[in-house]
Amino acid sequence: MKVLVILGHPDKNSFNHAIADTCRHQLVENGHSVVFHDLYEEGFNPIIDTVEIPRDGKVDETIKSHCDDLISSDGIVIIHPNWWGQPPAILKGWIDRVIRPGIAYGFEAGDNGEGTPIGLLKANIGLVFNTSNTSEVRENNIFKDPLDTIWRNCIFDLCGVKQFDRRMFRIVVASDLVQRIIWLNEVETMIDKYFPTNKI
Amino acid sequence: MKVLVILGHPDKNSFNHAIADTCRHQLVENGHSVVFHDLYEEGFNPIIDTVEIPRDGKVDETIKSHCDDLISSDGIVIIHPNWWGQPPAILKGWIDRVIRPGIAYGFEAGDNGEGTPIGLLKANIGLVFNTSNTSEVRENNIFKDPLDTIWRNCIFDLCGVKQFDRRMFRIVVASDLVQRIIWLNEVETMIDKYFPTNKI
Repeated sequence: MKVLVILGHPDKNSFNHAIADTCRHQLVENGHSVVFHDLYEEGFNPIIDTVEIPRDGKVDETIKSHCDDLISSDGIVIIHPNWWGQPPAILKGWIDRVIRPGIAYGFEAGDNGEGTPIGLLKANIGLVFNTSNTSEVRENNIFKDPLDTIWRNCIFDLCGVKQFDRRMFRIVVASDLVQRIIWLNEVETMIDKYFPTNKI
Repeated sequence: MKVLVILGHPDKNSFNHAIADTCRHQLVENGHSVVFHDLYEEGFNPIIDTVEIPRDGKVDETIKSHCDDLISSDGIVIIHPNWWGQPPAILKGWIDRVIRPGIAYGFEAGDNGEGTPIGLLKANIGLVFNTSNTSEVRENNIFKDPLDTIWRNCIFDLCGVKQFDRRMFRIVVASDLVQRIIWLNEVETMIDKYFPTNKI
């Protein structure tokens, strides 16, 4: 399988980077090909402008290349911290610019965007890893965990990616090395579950 | 009252801009002072880097100025389209960079960020206007309207802004001029409700 891995975190020493490294290693170990984008490392520009928005809008070469990666993937893995119940702006910009009409979703003939979109992605699994400094009780009871519905319903399900799983690691700021190693083992296990070893 | 108005939409002809114009006009009409930021117009940079993140992080003059506007406001009005259950990246970056520790929220002594933050903003009302092309039934039943909890709970309540209201105008892509005028009258009415005429 071809698996797209997207990372949105500014700190190369972050646990998010460790999760990304683990994902990439385990995917390759299992015989898959990985397309990896560290959005901060690449200096991704998250600002969409007016001319880019329509289905036939003007899209630059970087975004075209990202779109090619997205539509050709069999699976998608997203890694980012929980900042205000949302991804960091750089990853929000990847969503705004790359998950485009005509690429990830479309509309029935005669529908000008007011109807229900049709998912176009061929990927059959979307996997999200988040880090957080909020307790599970507070996240679920006070904040209602908006990241879950954002990725599960607003994005992956809408774009036709019907299988979804997500793991939020917490409390990262108070975690020690032993805890982090246990968490990275969980990442490996999730990769093994959804992207098992390719048997020829 | 001093009211901060933040707009995140790339198209100057958008209904979002019309909402912002209406808010500003009505606030001034009611005797308030308005600090307005059209983030696209200002070329706001939404990317936070590693050195900026900590409470004592390195913050540039633009962000310092935005923080001053935030802490000195008695009310905050946010205007943006619903893009994937979230604000556009440029506004997400304003959240990431301006709603800072030590400015908008803090922690008890000895808490390194794993506990419950304390809201620091003096503003007593947060008002959000959104535009959407998703039906109310689909937004509430399938997507679970993540923007509501993001602004209400994750951001304003956490930062100490206890009064909150929000209006999502839909379906904007299919709306005519008469509908939009009715909606702008609703904007005026909400401004009048939360920011009534200053009586000396």
